[in-house]
Amino acid sequence: MPEPSPIDLWLTMGSTYTYLTVMRLGGIEASTGIRFRLRPFNLRAIFDAAGYFPFPADSPKTAYMWRDIERRAAAYGIPIQVPAPYPARNSTLTNLIVLLGLEEGWGRGFAVAAYRRWFQLGQETGSDEHVAASLRDIGQDPGRVLALVQSDRIQQHWRDETDRARKLGVFGSPTFVVNGELFWGDDRREDAISWHRHGRVVLPS
Amino acid sequence: MPEPSPIDLWLTMGSTYTYLTVMRLGGIEASTGIRFRLRPFNLRAIFDAAGYFPFPADSPKTAYMWRDIERRAAAYGIPIQVPAPYPARNSTLTNLIVLLGLEEGWGRGFAVAAYRRWFQLGQETGSDEHVAASLRDIGQDPGRVLALVQSDRIQQHWRDETDRARKLGVFGSPTFVVNGELFWGDDRREDAISWHRHGRVVLPS
Repeated sequence: MPEPSPIDLWLTMGSTYTYLTVMRLGGIEASTGIRFRLRPFNLRAIFDAAGYFPFPADSPKTAYMWRDIERRAAAYGIPIQVPAPYPARNSTLTNLIVLLGLEEGWGRGFAVAAYRRWFQLGQETGSDEHVAASLRDIGQDPGRVLALVQSDRIQQHWRDETDRARKLGVFGSPTFVVNGELFWGDDRREDAISWHRHGRVVLPS
Repeated sequence: MPEPSPIDLWLTMGSTYTYLTVMRLGGIEASTGIRFRLRPFNLRAIFDAAGYFPFPADSPKTAYMWRDIERRAAAYGIPIQVPAPYPARNSTLTNLIVLLGLEEGWGRGFAVAAYRRWFQLGQETGSDEHVAASLRDIGQDPGRVLALVQSDRIQQHWRDETDRARKLGVFGSPTFVVNGELFWGDDRREDAISWHRHGRVVLPS
């Protein structure tokens, strides 16, 4: 039997709920046999164009978001310290490093390391300290990587991927795309897997 | 054994996702033994105060919302015609009628009838035609009810309930409240039930 097609996982490394997805991805792939392809994009640009930011400081929705993530992380057995430093002002750098790392074969490992440091150790994602330490965690040299991600090629790749996300109608992170169908949110991961397998959503009874 | 305490279900009858909750509530109560207490409130006022509306016309998020609800309704086996007329400009009237109906013992039945006409027959919620027909569906006289909901008492009750929702930190519909814990969204219904039973979120494996 041929390997099933992967599910595209559009994400920004500045997203809070995406922590729940990234930390479980290996286990989900092992249990389902479905691969997920990380697709970092510039969600900030899409928010700015829409004049919208989902989690304003000091709002009830933002307070709820942290509590909801905390409860779900506990249910998944994922360690977490909330609130993590937010909003993620420098997440573009984290995203660019994932983009480069995916080309070189260490993007997934970096994404996990970066989220672990942000959500478990309280280091602001994309800060100098956070990026350097996350790269060292996976045996990558920060000096080399930080020079490469400034290249025109990676910057253009970043813009191209963001254009693709926009054309697909992606407006949040994580978004799973299965045969053109969008599933937004860590809480739609099972719907996406169900769509991949059956072409429809089957909810747990 | 004493009857377990009910779960408060804060809602506006102008919410799209709340369709999925209201149409299944009877079945959920039967299968769980937990009662849900409907608490209509003025979510529009809370959105206006925050300078926020979650589903702008012609946005990718709004297009996604309809598709997501359509897929989940299919998974639940609930009939649906999307998009339903939206935004729900006159939903305050529908909410006031539920509020009165809850006092008189027919609020739940009206909520189901009103959602059925809005989401299955395409009648705009709160419109003259929609409200009159939904009331007749459950054997209530529209003239009597429409006079009563304009009373100072019901109007004050509506404002009081909205203040209570705001103080709880409710910012969307449906919101389930269990022992002070908020669970926002039809997709957090199982988390709320789990919290009610176990004091923590237990996800389906």
